[in-house]
Amino acid sequence: MRYTRPLHFLVVALALGVWPESLPCQSKARDLGIPFDGTPGALNAITDVKGVEVGFTTLISGSGKLVVGQGPVRTGVTAILPRGKGSNDPVFAGWFSLNGNGEMTGTTWVEESGFLEGPVMITNTHSVGVVRDAVIDWRVKHGAADETGYWWSLPVVAETWDGFLNDINGFHIKPAHISQALDAARSGPVAEGNVGGGTGMICYEYKGGTGTASRKLEEKTGAFTVGVLVQCNCGRRSQLTIAGVPVGREIPEKPAYGDEGSIIIVVATDAPLLPHQLKRLARRASIGLARTGSTSGNGSGDIFIAFSTANPGAAKSSGMTKLEMVPNDQMNPLFDATVEATEEAIVNALVAAQTMTGADNHTAIALPHGRLREVMKKYGRLAR
Amino acid sequence: MRYTRPLHFLVVALALGVWPESLPCQSKARDLGIPFDGTPGALNAITDVKGVEVGFTTLISGSGKLVVGQGPVRTGVTAILPRGKGSNDPVFAGWFSLNGNGEMTGTTWVEESGFLEGPVMITNTHSVGVVRDAVIDWRVKHGAADETGYWWSLPVVAETWDGFLNDINGFHIKPAHISQALDAARSGPVAEGNVGGGTGMICYEYKGGTGTASRKLEEKTGAFTVGVLVQCNCGRRSQLTIAGVPVGREIPEKPAYGDEGSIIIVVATDAPLLPHQLKRLARRASIGLARTGSTSGNGSGDIFIAFSTANPGAAKSSGMTKLEMVPNDQMNPLFDATVEATEEAIVNALVAAQTMTGADNHTAIALPHGRLREVMKKYGRLAR
Amino acid sequence: MRYTRPLHFLVVALALGVWPESLPCQSKARDLGIPFDGTPGALNAITDVKGVEVGFTTLISGSGKLVVGQGPVRTGVTAILPRGKGSNDPVFAGWFSLNGNGEMTGTTWVEESGFLEGPVMITNTHSVGVVRDAVIDWRVKHGAADETGYWWSLPVVAETWDGFLNDINGFHIKPAHISQALDAARSGPVAEGNVGGGTGMICYEYKGGTGTASRKLEEKTGAFTVGVLVQCNCGRRSQLTIAGVPVGREIPEKPAYGDEGSIIIVVATDAPLLPHQLKRLARRASIGLARTGSTSGNGSGDIFIAFSTANPGAAKSSGMTKLEMVPNDQMNPLFDATVEATEEAIVNALVAAQTMTGADNHTAIALPHGRLREVMKKYGRLAR
Amino acid sequence: MRYTRPLHFLVVALALGVWPESLPCQSKARDLGIPFDGTPGALNAITDVKGVEVGFTTLISGSGKLVVGQGPVRTGVTAILPRGKGSNDPVFAGWFSLNGNGEMTGTTWVEESGFLEGPVMITNTHSVGVVRDAVIDWRVKHGAADETGYWWSLPVVAETWDGFLNDINGFHIKPAHISQALDAARSGPVAEGNVGGGTGMICYEYKGGTGTASRKLEEKTGAFTVGVLVQCNCGRRSQLTIAGVPVGREIPEKPAYGDEGSIIIVVATDAPLLPHQLKRLARRASIGLARTGSTSGNGSGDIFIAFSTANPGAAKSSGMTKLEMVPNDQMNPLFDATVEATEEAIVNALVAAQTMTGADNHTAIALPHGRLREVMKKYGRLAR
Repeated sequence: MRYTRPLHFLVVALALGVWPESLPCQSKARDLGIPFDGTPGALNAITDVKGVEVGFTTLISGSGKLVVGQGPVRTGVTAILPRGKGSNDPVFAGWFSLNGNGEMTGTTWVEESGFLEGPVMITNTHSVGVVRDAVIDWRVKHGAADETGYWWSLPVVAETWDGFLNDINGFHIKPAHISQALDAARSGPVAEGNVGGGTGMICYEYKGGTGTASRKLEEKTGAFTVGVLVQCNCGRRSQLTIAGVPVGREIPEKPAYGDEGSIIIVVATDAPLLPHQLKRLARRASIGLARTGSTSGNGSGDIFIAFSTANPGAAKSSGMTKLEMVPNDQMNPLFDATVEATEEAIVNALVAAQTMTGADNHTAIALPHGRLREVMKKYGRLAR
Repeated sequence: MRYTRPLHFLVVALALGVWPESLPCQSKARDLGIPFDGTPGALNAITDVKGVEVGFTTLISGSGKLVVGQGPVRTGVTAILPRGKGSNDPVFAGWFSLNGNGEMTGTTWVEESGFLEGPVMITNTHSVGVVRDAVIDWRVKHGAADETGYWWSLPVVAETWDGFLNDINGFHIKPAHISQALDAARSGPVAEGNVGGGTGMICYEYKGGTGTASRKLEEKTGAFTVGVLVQCNCGRRSQLTIAGVPVGREIPEKPAYGDEGSIIIVVATDAPLLPHQLKRLARRASIGLARTGSTSGNGSGDIFIAFSTANPGAAKSSGMTKLEMVPNDQMNPLFDATVEATEEAIVNALVAAQTMTGADNHTAIALPHGRLREVMKKYGRLAR
Repeated sequence: MRYTRPLHFLVVALALGVWPESLPCQSKARDLGIPFDGTPGALNAITDVKGVEVGFTTLISGSGKLVVGQGPVRTGVTAILPRGKGSNDPVFAGWFSLNGNGEMTGTTWVEESGFLEGPVMITNTHSVGVVRDAVIDWRVKHGAADETGYWWSLPVVAETWDGFLNDINGFHIKPAHISQALDAARSGPVAEGNVGGGTGMICYEYKGGTGTASRKLEEKTGAFTVGVLVQCNCGRRSQLTIAGVPVGREIPEKPAYGDEGSIIIVVATDAPLLPHQLKRLARRASIGLARTGSTSGNGSGDIFIAFSTANPGAAKSSGMTKLEMVPNDQMNPLFDATVEATEEAIVNALVAAQTMTGADNHTAIALPHGRLREVMKKYGRLAR
Repeated sequence: MRYTRPLHFLVVALALGVWPESLPCQSKARDLGIPFDGTPGALNAITDVKGVEVGFTTLISGSGKLVVGQGPVRTGVTAILPRGKGSNDPVFAGWFSLNGNGEMTGTTWVEESGFLEGPVMITNTHSVGVVRDAVIDWRVKHGAADETGYWWSLPVVAETWDGFLNDINGFHIKPAHISQALDAARSGPVAEGNVGGGTGMICYEYKGGTGTASRKLEEKTGAFTVGVLVQCNCGRRSQLTIAGVPVGREIPEKPAYGDEGSIIIVVATDAPLLPHQLKRLARRASIGLARTGSTSGNGSGDIFIAFSTANPGAAKSSGMTKLEMVPNDQMNPLFDATVEATEEAIVNALVAAQTMTGADNHTAIALPHGRLREVMKKYGRLAR
């Protein structure tokens, strides 16, 4: 596959975080009749959690033989701002590593302080550093000052490995790409598949990448929203399970190379949860992942972070902070929502991603929608 | 406490760890046509890991209205001895808490030392203490002395709550019951369902309890064995999933009370794994549990421990210890085996357990085998 | 040493948690001129934190040769009730294990929920179980019911090993002793040295046991109180350091047996701290311990728990909980207070403990007060 | 950026890891008569552990008013290669965060795998990213390939904050500086004070920076070596304690700004320890730090890592790995050595560092050697 002008257009469009109208409408998995539990929010996206903004920089250029430093380039950066670009107000957060063959910087301070002070950034494995320092730089230049002068100096940056399709040792992510993703962050619909940090990713040996979903709780359980965004790069084909159906075994054709991937899962909620409760949410992402068939392989960096946009001002430096907390006894609906939204976000990543050819003409095929529907039907699991 | 004769017989029989021949033959889930991945060991039980011995004390007496201290009694103790009764040699171990609403004593030392020094015991929530001290006493009286005099003084004892069927506040487990379970421990087939610590347990609102399964790796991946034993007391009916099929929704009748259960999962292997690697195995039990539908509710004590019977003598006090280790890069088959055996052990507990009526005539029904087969067939998942 | 009537009187008196007036007045380390940083509360005890109640059962009987089951007995139970006997309201808590060669039950739920739901109990290593179950029983019988019926069912019970002086394998702690300690709990002055769980303990090879101290913060830093209670059974003689002075090397005479002890440290505060902040406090107990010279030996169970009596009602089951929190940026004075009170509590345990002879006529000598003052003077560290 | 000649010379000299002969001979604290426990190795440096190599890049330029991007520059990079530049063989490692207000990348994989696969790098807070990516780049370009292609892709990079003296927002560390530090790494004496990542650091409000020390165990306890290197940037003046003496209170003059620093502690040993045992060593660094007076303030990133150069080849990808392990019961001398070497390394950093004036003419004074000796003498702690 040769990318020329239209792709350049695509890069710009994706950087804006919106799917170009001139492209075929982006499918969500549930549009194909995949059954999922629970009720999604309006956008079925992490941005259903009020205040959350998402921005992407997507880099796609070159084709054919890999020449380190020259490409082909299939990579990018994803920025998730818990309270949007306009805020320096930290959020409570917790994290969990199901299998730590990966990186999420900044977690030592998340664990200690209970706060996520800036954005969550996701990129490729070899570009975590440039993203990290550039986040500090962006904040110094664009962000309002905080009281202490320390917020944002320990950025949270996570990664998955795109070296199958991308010239990862070419270090193509530059500081400007980080500013671009941060500046592009907005609420509203979120592009999925081959965008941002997810651009060159492979999921269950299909083309994977960025996926998102959300759940809206009933009034009686607090009417809270849980949103999830994944950068999915994990799993063996034979493991892929969708709504309980062994999809990967039914559609075994053309697997990309195996298990050495990873998945980063970001869980957002407006429920007022304390840091230790958010860690509980982060741990539930494991269960959502498990539902899609992964056994969290040795090579997989399965690292999850959850934050709450409630309790604004909680990170103030002086005086006494007033907080609200959901009782532990009321957390089950939030656990369910996290599991369900994680499962659906992963399947959404698979459904949205399109076949990509990259470095050395390696190809990762898209999960074929028609075949998927047939398989679901065969197992009595196709929704009306 | 009054035992009618048949029950007394049953108690003795179960204490021997074998199912009485005069009772209907005990079914394993795969005998019903439930499909599972992987290849089980000869017994499809934790005792497929050479050296592991399992013993039970099962206490069933009384019926009708609950009178604290008088019954009805539906409880017991399970003893798992990694190297059998005859050995004082500790094993490497690691543990993980998916949702810590429960107790597993001794884990602070497991975490620090890397060793599990004695048995893993499982009982009801209110009897953890008596079991713990009695384990020390048993070892002082029966065990050979260790070099340091400290082994076994920090016993590992876990629990799930049986207060729906059992007079839990009557504290019916006595020190003699612990000796009985330890003395009864043996290799060979393992009784399942309403036995030992699992006697009064409820799983996905069916009668649950003790379950076990195993996996045997292929020669090329080391020919190791992974065995799992669960005490399953968790889950809401609507969550129950078997081989991807929403069984709980298809058979919603007569649920016992809801979610406030727990599951203890014990993973044994003969693969030479170090403590930090065994923690990785323990974490994979989460994925096996997830496959059966649980989202690990707030009230659930989902606590897992994994140990390796390899590296005998590793805990010696002086000199230099020689060890073997499976490379991290070779652990995926062990991860898969742990997930698969955990999933099957839970389903085995459900399939083996028989309807029980206990305190205040509360009843937990057995998962109906015929209905289960019908549902599996409906979703194209009944094995030939 | 022969104990007769006066000792029986002592047992009763100590069980009441007060030092009998007819005995010589109990010295605190600072009364001897040991310099400590910071300002203690009125009692220089954990009970300076309003609401905290402490009770002891002290068992001292027999002498001469050890006969398992017959004695000599030198042991006991300590009960610390965060909000006193009259309350079932849990407190926020966090814990830390510096060296986990010991037991503190209930910590898995503390970690998960953020709450300590009942008392902290401390006893000898082999009696953790009986104490644990008896706490549940006491609560069932005496405590008011909670909303969920689950509080107090995962008790926090810690231990240190007193087998040098006590017939530890005789299991002399009985359920009644636990009720006794709980019922005896009260605010006010706290007995130190050879009382409660600390009765048979050895600290830096002197007689050790129970010690307590507190710090009161200045108005400008919140006027909070931090109280600490230790059960000190750790350390080698040569390590003992007091106010920076190598006391253990200066007074090397008559060491009891070496390093295989432990220390349990309980930190209480009225500062409104969240669970993850209390974990930070628990971790600072390490620094207080370090100041007394320990390097936390392999055989030492150095396990710490911190709780906050602020935020009453935080553990309610429904609705939204309103909380207060001290900003992280304001925690340094609380860290200092924890370190200082821990250090002083350990030295107080040493200063209060009296020479004891126990099993097989083993003797642990008291730290000689006069010699201590001389050594402090030699190094220019004697106050006034 | 303009370097005056003498400074340029200094930069080169320090990059070589040796103190220029034309400069006054570098003092170690023990040369001043400070008493320390234990026996140091030949160099009293981390390089006493055979195979360990250390390299620095030191950037010192400009003076006067801070202009972001222009300087003054007072910063650098430290590289510690566990097996030296010539090896790609990972080492077993464990880490611990006493107070996580800082960054150490790569620790999630250290925790999961038990291995540290490349160097430990230390720099300033805002340059962690550039160092991280450059380490990958250096390895791709210079390192021999590993079997899996993944080693070194999750680098360990730690930091402390030098913004008081350095134009930290100028991001003066460039990829070439990382290569320079790695290429300069060597065994032998290690420069201390204002070098490498420690260049602009402040310790107990004196000039701090890089410090190192070691301990050699006796033959009967294995003759192992423990080496420590610290980048010390923490502590309030009033806290500073040396050999138990309140030095900070005795020499209160000219404190640099307060507590918001950090300390990174790297512990190396040739003792064959497993990952969980190395975590125990890392935790002991807390005690060494505590001995110098810190209470690990909220703003302090006190993060420690320990590795063992024993068990070469342990990280191989296939077959069965043969290992050796020191029994837990033999670890106390290693604990003591870690504590002692950490304490001495911190004091060495203080003694070696020289007064520095940097950004906006901020000055951090060196700990005055003469005064220090006087104070030690006053408290009877000056070694002959």
